[in-house]
Amino acid sequence: MHRVVTLTTDFGTTEYVAAMKGVVLSINPQVTIVDISHDVRPQNILQGAYVLRATVSYFDNAIHVGVVDPGVGTERAGLIIRCEKGVLVGPDNGLLLPAARKLGLASVFRITNAKYLLDTISDTFHGRDIFAPAAAHLSRGVSPEEMGGSVDKYVDLKLEHYVEKDGRLEGRILHVDRFGNLISSIEKKVISEHLDFGSHVTIEMKGESEVKAKKIRFLSTYGAADVGELIATVSSSGFFEIACNRGSAGQMLNADLGDIIEVKIQ
Amino acid sequence: MHRVVTLTTDFGTTEYVAAMKGVVLSINPQVTIVDISHDVRPQNILQGAYVLRATVSYFDNAIHVGVVDPGVGTERAGLIIRCEKGVLVGPDNGLLLPAARKLGLASVFRITNAKYLLDTISDTFHGRDIFAPAAAHLSRGVSPEEMGGSVDKYVDLKLEHYVEKDGRLEGRILHVDRFGNLISSIEKKVISEHLDFGSHVTIEMKGESEVKAKKIRFLSTYGAADVGELIATVSSSGFFEIACNRGSAGQMLNADLGDIIEVKIQ
Amino acid sequence: MHRVVTLTTDFGTTEYVAAMKGVVLSINPQVTIVDISHDVRPQNILQGAYVLRATVSYFDNAIHVGVVDPGVGTERAGLIIRCEKGVLVGPDNGLLLPAARKLGLASVFRITNAKYLLDTISDTFHGRDIFAPAAAHLSRGVSPEEMGGSVDKYVDLKLEHYVEKDGRLEGRILHVDRFGNLISSIEKKVISEHLDFGSHVTIEMKGESEVKAKKIRFLSTYGAADVGELIATVSSSGFFEIACNRGSAGQMLNADLGDIIEVKIQ
Repeated sequence: MHRVVTLTTDFGTTEYVAAMKGVVLSINPQVTIVDISHDVRPQNILQGAYVLRATVSYFDNAIHVGVVDPGVGTERAGLIIRCEKGVLVGPDNGLLLPAARKLGLASVFRITNAKYLLDTISDTFHGRDIFAPAAAHLSRGVSPEEMGGSVDKYVDLKLEHYVEKDGRLEGRILHVDRFGNLISSIEKKVISEHLDFGSHVTIEMKGESEVKAKKIRFLSTYGAADVGELIATVSSSGFFEIACNRGSAGQMLNADLGDIIEVKIQ
Repeated sequence: MHRVVTLTTDFGTTEYVAAMKGVVLSINPQVTIVDISHDVRPQNILQGAYVLRATVSYFDNAIHVGVVDPGVGTERAGLIIRCEKGVLVGPDNGLLLPAARKLGLASVFRITNAKYLLDTISDTFHGRDIFAPAAAHLSRGVSPEEMGGSVDKYVDLKLEHYVEKDGRLEGRILHVDRFGNLISSIEKKVISEHLDFGSHVTIEMKGESEVKAKKIRFLSTYGAADVGELIATVSSSGFFEIACNRGSAGQMLNADLGDIIEVKIQ
Repeated sequence: MHRVVTLTTDFGTTEYVAAMKGVVLSINPQVTIVDISHDVRPQNILQGAYVLRATVSYFDNAIHVGVVDPGVGTERAGLIIRCEKGVLVGPDNGLLLPAARKLGLASVFRITNAKYLLDTISDTFHGRDIFAPAAAHLSRGVSPEEMGGSVDKYVDLKLEHYVEKDGRLEGRILHVDRFGNLISSIEKKVISEHLDFGSHVTIEMKGESEVKAKKIRFLSTYGAADVGELIATVSSSGFFEIACNRGSAGQMLNADLGDIIEVKIQ
């Protein structure tokens, strides 16, 4: 039996989240609800997927509900993904897949059994009407099989991504955290083939603003940098990251979610 | 016995809210506390009342504490409202009444028994000193009768509001949510007498900025609109709403809480 | 046994906080987690210490985790502080000490036993890898002694602070709350020797902007002030405070955290 249900949405910390919690607790008052984040940029599936993937493995066999859902009210399905180390619930738009692979994806189900949903399903708020009740019933021990049939086809999404060309690795900014750290789609293992901690690295960024080639140190920890120094490092989630010791890399580079990052490797 | 206590305030997600939770858990460690919202515009009783009314019915027999309280430290009373489907606790300024009617208002009590409050009552923070301990004792099974006498007179507040004149319905913006959706005081049932989903509707807005007549579609779901299209719809709480598919209606119209909205019906 | 673990950080309400909660609940699923604040100004130890000190006494024998930690990844130690009315866990940088004195400081321990920490300790996130698991094990009944040796030397920090010169008390702004109230380092008992409620007081502020001498009323409650009136008062945490009835003192004075405040007492 699962005791913890987590919530990840783009709703802000608002009454919409509270309605989901009310639905969950009405069905299973024993559950502990934990907010992962409600500050996903509105309708940014990529960032939502990053946040989920970066966080779910710190929970022990929890049920993770994700709602970043630009297609709400259309034909897109609702999914339950059974994993080795937890269960994921949310829309069929790729949001859940990176986290599912992190937790050991086992099988995917499409939510169809109305018995486990709210009586009235609105066109605008499936987080409350479908995903919250589905998660609550799962926490009570109802199996995914009882809630819908298993499926082979679903929308996938990959966060880990880079292109190598002309002596550069090109990736994308997946997440800007509260400190202004810029977390890219380039995995630690890719960078490690080309760079050692302590060496220098040249980066370029392309978004609304363009950042010309900048040579910075690649360090294992913020604390090893000077105050205000822009550095490259590896995020606690395992991705190549641009950070600033006691400052905001995002502000320094005027960079944002979705920007292209190029890392010179020759 | 009630296991869930919810909190709705204009404190932001701050240490003031945490102090209230500490007080509740010190009195009843068994309780589950859920934040409904702490982002009510400071001292905006109307928005606080809207948020409570829109959310309380998703909880099963919970105790709902509301603190939007410009009169704190003055003579205004503290209330407990017993409803068919829950209990409300907060200041006597109208904040609780729309939610109370939603939950089936049964009887209203004035909090007077100091035995169930903190030893020292500050002039500035009744949320912590009066309403949190009152809610915690209610959750332990103390009856409203033990905490104070029942009253017939209290400040009331009505959210559902419109005036019909010159072929227009005139209402007011009660709430701007995190997506910039503008939720008005005009109820679904009023609009439904004049408009069908799929038809066009002409609106005007009057606040700091004035929005000249705008003809938009009235749709049952955001997803049916084009990206960036301004539409009219019905909020999940049952009110006439102006929204924008993947955008902010509030920003597009430069509109805010409290603005007047006029809906042409002829 | 402790059932409540509180969290105070400068992480924002982000996935970093959620990872800490996942770690705590994986070790002890029975615990209730309460957020005190995650909106401490990044790396502002003084404000973090204020927020902790202002809030911990409303909890009954809880475990309080504080993470405002510019020295993460360096040699600074991790501490457990046993108090008469609770336990504190966090970095050895002064953050915990004002709260520890408030709860009755008994003894201080340095966290060293790797058995009670995550298997891999990152250089950037001790909140998740050290302090969260330490707190969770404490909540299960593991003693501070099992987790490390007691120490006599640690970084101290004092919030209560003023200098008296030339007929003035000089203090510092420790905290600006969500309403724009400016809470200073001058304690109530110091002010009370010089000022009575109802009298006038002259203040000056020095920060990025300078505020020339301003004569305002010293009142026991916001409600006694006129709407929009700037007043002096005493915060619910027991410090001299500048506030504005239904307005923001911070905005009116263009004042911020860390500014100097001078209070004329002759």
